[in-house]
Amino acid sequence: MLNKKADTMWIYGKHAVAAAAKNPKRTVVKLVALPQNEDFLTELSSVSKAKQEIVDKNFFISRFGKDAIHQGCAALVTKLKDVYLEDLEDDNRPLVFLDQVADPQNIGSILRAAAVFGAKAVVLPEMNTPEMTPAMIKIASGAVESVPLIKVKNLVQSIKLLQQQGYWCLGLDERADKQIYQIDLKGKFIIVIGSEGNGMRRLTRDVCDFLVQLPSFGGFSTLNAAQAATVSLYEFLKQNKGI
Amino acid sequence: MLNKKADTMWIYGKHAVAAAAKNPKRTVVKLVALPQNEDFLTELSSVSKAKQEIVDKNFFISRFGKDAIHQGCAALVTKLKDVYLEDLEDDNRPLVFLDQVADPQNIGSILRAAAVFGAKAVVLPEMNTPEMTPAMIKIASGAVESVPLIKVKNLVQSIKLLQQQGYWCLGLDERADKQIYQIDLKGKFIIVIGSEGNGMRRLTRDVCDFLVQLPSFGGFSTLNAAQAATVSLYEFLKQNKGI
Repeated sequence: MLNKKADTMWIYGKHAVAAAAKNPKRTVVKLVALPQNEDFLTELSSVSKAKQEIVDKNFFISRFGKDAIHQGCAALVTKLKDVYLEDLEDDNRPLVFLDQVADPQNIGSILRAAAVFGAKAVVLPEMNTPEMTPAMIKIASGAVESVPLIKVKNLVQSIKLLQQQGYWCLGLDERADKQIYQIDLKGKFIIVIGSEGNGMRRLTRDVCDFLVQLPSFGGFSTLNAAQAATVSLYEFLKQNKGI
Repeated sequence: MLNKKADTMWIYGKHAVAAAAKNPKRTVVKLVALPQNEDFLTELSSVSKAKQEIVDKNFFISRFGKDAIHQGCAALVTKLKDVYLEDLEDDNRPLVFLDQVADPQNIGSILRAAAVFGAKAVVLPEMNTPEMTPAMIKIASGAVESVPLIKVKNLVQSIKLLQQQGYWCLGLDERADKQIYQIDLKGKFIIVIGSEGNGMRRLTRDVCDFLVQLPSFGGFSTLNAAQAATVSLYEFLKQNKGI
């Protein structure tokens, strides 16, 4: 099965590669590094039996382009299996839904915040959503190994289904009257982050049980989608830990 | 003076250009946009008398490269004058010090969070710090017009000077015993963010009055420098607003 090209992908970045090598749900086919990062490969030989190879700069440029922040290491790994909402455990960790957030860097940062602050999964619509790119995986800094990125056919229908199962849906909206910290965030929650500028689509906004904004100091506008998600997940963690 | 090339720079991105056009501390020399963004230029004519021009894609590619997220508009503007620590107002808004944070994208995001959550300035060492690039200004989304980016000769000496003036210095450190929310953050504070991976330099850590970490859900590592700064400034705002 590993011979099928579609089943594998190259990823780069030290945290991303190390986390993938430690993830039993992946097989690492090959590990490569620049000569100065040979130690990094040596460390990984305790967790992965994959073939190792020292390569030069051109290896990275030809595969990832000249602007990739590859940190001199990469791995050919099997892709993670698709995860579905039905697969998730039934606990009180929040679910992050992204409505029209399409920038791979933002999605990568949101996965990272989800891992740090204990979100259960990041959920996106199938349409107009980028594939999991090496750049996204690098920015997520290992988080893709622990936080599933789930694609659903219809965001609103998925929210409604979860609401029937006891989830509250809280949407971030610049124009909301309430602040996030004014809501009791204990229990099962979906948090919806919209695109920068346009926010959520109307149908998504309509299905939310709560609309909230983040506090700000003065008249200055807003955070980007990744920063807004990070702050929101921090607030969730604090309230749920009672701190 | 405007004839001197060193005094002006090109910036891009809708929020960045609009905020610069509204800033009385800058002169806009020229505004350009793609044909589909003519309306954007028309809107700006009420705040800026600068010459306007419709340009094609090649204008952006030749100036900013093919990966710049320019949003089809740019401006030639005078650079902002240098600001010094002595110029800052004497109030309780926190100061953000960055120790070895060199990525322009992270610095741009931190400026944006500083504007949203009311930090007074972002302070960096002169050495090994990137210039204010168009990409940084775009990511800051207008924040460079309201939050000064200050370069100092010696970060530790500047912290000591501010401590003599009544500032407390709080450093973010993954290995700290205390959590940020356990500290009373009211009063004058410097918050120090180190580089991802290496954190603060030892001399910087030694000068801190408090070392704190951010809470996390499980064993997963940490946020990047921009996310850590954003969450910290949110915590500052909440405590100082008593919310």
